[in-house]
Amino acid sequence: MEPERLKIEAERRLPSGRYQHVLRVAETAMILADRFGEDKEKAETAALLHDLAKAMPKEDLKRIVESEGDPVAVLGFHHELWHGPAGAVIARDEFGIRDADILAAVRFHTTGRAGMSRLEKIIFIADMIEPGRNFPGADQLREEAERSLEDALIACSAHSLQYLASVRAAIHPDTLRCYNDSLSQGKGAMNR
Amino acid sequence: MEPERLKIEAERRLPSGRYQHVLRVAETAMILADRFGEDKEKAETAALLHDLAKAMPKEDLKRIVESEGDPVAVLGFHHELWHGPAGAVIARDEFGIRDADILAAVRFHTTGRAGMSRLEKIIFIADMIEPGRNFPGADQLREEAERSLEDALIACSAHSLQYLASVRAAIHPDTLRCYNDSLSQGKGAMNR
Repeated sequence: MEPERLKIEAERRLPSGRYQHVLRVAETAMILADRFGEDKEKAETAALLHDLAKAMPKEDLKRIVESEGDPVAVLGFHHELWHGPAGAVIARDEFGIRDADILAAVRFHTTGRAGMSRLEKIIFIADMIEPGRNFPGADQLREEAERSLEDALIACSAHSLQYLASVRAAIHPDTLRCYNDSLSQGKGAMNR
Repeated sequence: MEPERLKIEAERRLPSGRYQHVLRVAETAMILADRFGEDKEKAETAALLHDLAKAMPKEDLKRIVESEGDPVAVLGFHHELWHGPAGAVIARDEFGIRDADILAAVRFHTTGRAGMSRLEKIIFIADMIEPGRNFPGADQLREEAERSLEDALIACSAHSLQYLASVRAAIHPDTLRCYNDSLSQGKGAMNR
């Protein structure tokens, strides 16, 4: 599906602020794709799709996730984690996306997981470092992403764990697996 | 086994600073036991045993953990996590401890786990808040432990996650399970 059509769909389905976020994630994802040797069109497509289900009512998200058997086991966690798996179903069924890598990038963009592909890493990271993000430490994550996708993944997944623990939110096991797995790939692996 | 005999064994097997830590954990564990309705003698025994394997060579720890089939699956993680499971084996085989609750408190005192007993929580928490601990945030953990064992467990397990992620150390899944499980028991459960 062409980017312009995806943008129209995203704009139609999302509040304006969220749509602007999606556009910034797409820009960031294309920069990362260029920097780290990923297909830029795939990165743009995955980014434009990633939050497609973000504004849907909880009940609809739940129904969609349940219809697939909740393979990522998100329904026991906060509903903030439901829009990724639900978005992948919508991307497949309503947008005809067949590329498994793009669908996985949408599905796991909030939790992360162990063994992420390059595209999955790019969407996960772009979502956290797009220029609109201004949480404490965001610039440090951007600096890591200048140099190494693997080190950026360590920094971003570690940031997720620290943030979620600081606000006493339940943490999905895939987020921990993403973090532990990233450690074995980054520059600091020898220290552990 | 009597506390005085356990103290002699702990002193014999540990460097002086570590032995002093063990004595402070025992004092703290007895205070917590008194506060939250646990058997003080069991708390003292578990505390005096908890770091018994702390000073053993890595190779010996590994051999002991392997001999039990590594039921907690710690061998893929930093050797800092090996002395709890190894210590439980020593407590059982060399000290004749048969109380499953005491053995579990020793086994899981570093990682934590989901579904901890009151005694397990007390040892896990006492190990982090004994008066010799002076890391940033330690006083806040002590304050939680004045009021509620469940809230102290949330705070202590969250602190573990945050600290380990900040130093980019791999995190055992039981530590995440301990944290997630603690959230469902503490005062803030309704917020999630």
